[in-house]
Amino acid sequence: MTPRAVGVASFRLDERLAADTLPVARLPLCETRLMDDARFAWMILVPRRAGLVELFDLRATERVQLFEELERAADALCAVAPCDKLNIGALGNSVRQLHVHVIARTVGDVAWPGPVWGHGTRQPYPPAAAQARCTALQARLHAARER
Amino acid sequence: MTPRAVGVASFRLDERLAADTLPVARLPLCETRLMDDARFAWMILVPRRAGLVELFDLRATERVQLFEELERAADALCAVAPCDKLNIGALGNSVRQLHVHVIARTVGDVAWPGPVWGHGTRQPYPPAAAQARCTALQARLHAARER
Repeated sequence: MTPRAVGVASFRLDERLAADTLPVARLPLCETRLMDDARFAWMILVPRRAGLVELFDLRATERVQLFEELERAADALCAVAPCDKLNIGALGNSVRQLHVHVIARTVGDVAWPGPVWGHGTRQPYPPAAAQARCTALQARLHAARER
Repeated sequence: MTPRAVGVASFRLDERLAADTLPVARLPLCETRLMDDARFAWMILVPRRAGLVELFDLRATERVQLFEELERAADALCAVAPCDKLNIGALGNSVRQLHVHVIARTVGDVAWPGPVWGHGTRQPYPPAAAQARCTALQARLHAARER
C-alpha cells in the first residue's frame, strides 16, 4: 500500500467539524459541507487525506484540485445565496484537520465587514431550510461537474 | 498591447493596503508586504495585476504561482517568528483589491484562537524593529528563490 493509499484509507472527518456542518457533496479531493449556521452562506471543504494540517501539506496536483473545488463551491454558494464578496480562509486554530472555508458575504450581514469566525453564536438552520440549501448546492455542484 | 500587459502596467497598490503595511519583496506574481502590527507575524501578498478582486479572478498559471509564493512567505514568517499554526485568508471586505493574508499564529497570542482580522487595534512596530523584520524576511525570501 502506498503512503497515499494509506492517507486516503485512514481519513476521518474531525468530529467537531462533523458536528457543526451538514454533508453536501463528495468532490474528487474534498468533502464539501454546509456550515450549519443560517446567518451565513458558508461551506467548508475538507481534503480526504489523513494527517493534513496546513495548506502547504498538499501536493502540487492536490493544490490545483483544491483551487478548482473551492471555485466550484463558491460558484454554487453564489448561485443559491446573495454574494457581494467571497471570503476564503484556512485557519485551523481550533480544529487542526485541514479545512478551507468558503463564505458568500453580503454587505451588512451580521458580521460585516469583520470575519465570520468567532462572531457571535452559530444559529442552526431550521431542518427543512438546511435540507433545501444542501439540495440546491448539490444540484449546482453536480451541474458544474458536467460542464 | 495584450490585456495582460495592460493589467500589469496599470496595477497600483491600494492606498489603504499601502498605509497599513511595509514593503518586503517583489516576487514574480505578488508584492509581499509586512502588516505593520507588532502583535502578529503577518504578511499580505498582492498579485500585481489590475482589477483583481476574487481569488478566482486569477488564471490557472497564476493560481499555481500564488500558492508557491504563499508557501515562500509562510516559510519566511515561520523562520523569523514562532509559529504554531498558519492562517491563510482572502477576505477583502474592506479593501476589494485582491490580497491574501499569511499569518504565523501562536497559541496564546492576543487573538488566539480567534482570527486576527478586526481584533483590537493595530500596534505599529517601533521603526527599528520593523526594518529588522523586513530585512530578515527579505533574506529568507531570497534564499528560497535561489534553492
